[in-house]
Amino acid sequence: MPHIYTWDVDRWTQPSGVTGLNAGAGLGMGLAMGQGLDRGLQFGDGLFETMRLNAKGESPLMPLHQGRLKKGLAVLGFSPDAITTVERAMSKLSDITLAHLSTHTSSPITPTSAHNQPQAVDCRPDDGGVCSGVKIIVTRGNSTQGYGAIEGIRPNIYAVTFEAPELNPAPALINVGVNPVTLGEQPLLAGLKHLNRIEQVLARQKFQPEWSESIMLNQKSQIVEGCMSNIFVNIDNQWLTPPMDNAGVDGVVRQWLLSMVDKISVEVIPLKELASAQAICFSNSLSGFREVQALDGQSLLMNTDVTDWQMHYKSLFDEC
Amino acid sequence: MPHIYTWDVDRWTQPSGVTGLNAGAGLGMGLAMGQGLDRGLQFGDGLFETMRLNAKGESPLMPLHQGRLKKGLAVLGFSPDAITTVERAMSKLSDITLAHLSTHTSSPITPTSAHNQPQAVDCRPDDGGVCSGVKIIVTRGNSTQGYGAIEGIRPNIYAVTFEAPELNPAPALINVGVNPVTLGEQPLLAGLKHLNRIEQVLARQKFQPEWSESIMLNQKSQIVEGCMSNIFVNIDNQWLTPPMDNAGVDGVVRQWLLSMVDKISVEVIPLKELASAQAICFSNSLSGFREVQALDGQSLLMNTDVTDWQMHYKSLFDEC
Repeated sequence: MPHIYTWDVDRWTQPSGVTGLNAGAGLGMGLAMGQGLDRGLQFGDGLFETMRLNAKGESPLMPLHQGRLKKGLAVLGFSPDAITTVERAMSKLSDITLAHLSTHTSSPITPTSAHNQPQAVDCRPDDGGVCSGVKIIVTRGNSTQGYGAIEGIRPNIYAVTFEAPELNPAPALINVGVNPVTLGEQPLLAGLKHLNRIEQVLARQKFQPEWSESIMLNQKSQIVEGCMSNIFVNIDNQWLTPPMDNAGVDGVVRQWLLSMVDKISVEVIPLKELASAQAICFSNSLSGFREVQALDGQSLLMNTDVTDWQMHYKSLFDEC
Repeated sequence: MPHIYTWDVDRWTQPSGVTGLNAGAGLGMGLAMGQGLDRGLQFGDGLFETMRLNAKGESPLMPLHQGRLKKGLAVLGFSPDAITTVERAMSKLSDITLAHLSTHTSSPITPTSAHNQPQAVDCRPDDGGVCSGVKIIVTRGNSTQGYGAIEGIRPNIYAVTFEAPELNPAPALINVGVNPVTLGEQPLLAGLKHLNRIEQVLARQKFQPEWSESIMLNQKSQIVEGCMSNIFVNIDNQWLTPPMDNAGVDGVVRQWLLSMVDKISVEVIPLKELASAQAICFSNSLSGFREVQALDGQSLLMNTDVTDWQMHYKSLFDEC
């Protein structure tokens, strides 16, 4: 069961007795902080981060998550005070992630579903730790009506802790297809993990039963990303990944990989080039890397690079 | 003060003592209906309608609001059960709008701000009625994580009643400019009043102090709409309004006007044609029509058509 928290002045709070099926009630706390309705609900006026945690309840990629969130807050025009509040909440995340771990290490773990992948109940059976993740949602705050927000508006910050899928040394092999939903282009918001996600919701509805991910194109039939991952395509022994300057989310695993591996080229990939792809993989912070074994029924090759990347990614979580 | 309600099985509810500054707390009710967090908050996964009401608490344009909402629910893939629930809630709206009116007719009315326009405290002083409006927010429901929603998910429906600005027989005269924020294009969502509104929030931040509205362009420098209105441009004695097939909201006042007036042509308007504009007006359901007296400091002519339209629009609310 997920646990829901809200940031209340200087601490994470979880109303007593509010977990699982009734967890939503916890939101009343956040929504009552100021006047009106949460602008996240009204306009999608905010950002989110989904982080994988190690056995200490920490995210090894925290600096990248914080960097993207801070960039997004600036683009959305959050005030310096609001940004300070968000940074404070992020710095105290271990208060709730540790609580999540201590809740679960002493009791049987119920597997949950993420991305429709088969789930393991425990990724570190040797020492009783659990795979866990946390999703942070930051909204501009509450207002009554209209797109304008008053000066001094205070952000609402929510956190959901959950059990994450097992992270194997080798990437999961998945079947994918090209999604019929194409992404709009908006350079102002490209790269950010903002709350305007109807395109992804519609794209998720278009998954075929055998798909675990799907390739999202822009309006020019160029590859952008997966529905919930970034994409890397191997053509002629060269790894390519699309730029994130008009659409898409600049994923933290993508950032991490690009910072480590020189041989990946960031360039536009027209859909027609998929026919020449030898290997394709997707990255996101929860599952690390997933490699495509079949694209619309056509088999692809496995590439040892991806196994290396996944092993390296997994080692980030084991070194704790 | 706005009043916030949530739809609870078969009636609108408002937790006792929860109004005004603490109104957000009412949302806990809605958010606790199902498992997890509201997908409106997580992804902007939903729609809204803002309706002007007459002295009986009814919207004369209700069929158009219902039609747009129903179309949006279908595009977003809401289930038939969910759509039935939304229709039921809409059919019972008078339960709360009448309550709003009865609250206010017997007490002094506090003016509120909408669109930064000067406010009147009473639009029907002869019989003690008030100008009022209601905003409805419909989200797909609650879920825990991931873009996919479970089968059988139940929508969350919120309503906010508020005092609306006075509706004059003649349109308000406003100063506007061209907004530097350009709209992305997404044919799948164009026309809908969905909850993914970060572009409008960013555009609202770019208003100059003297602006009451601003002209939004798409990525091709074509005019789409205002930030919170539709636009009509008079060039060579011909009224033009842009199509809503790639971006923009297909406003109910726009629909109503196009259904009545033959001489308005729906066609693409490149930004450069603004230099030839003799008159410009904006429409939305709260303010009816607002006519541009100065565009980026350059004076425009008033056009008697707009006064006719505004008088006609106002008469919809007086005939009750």
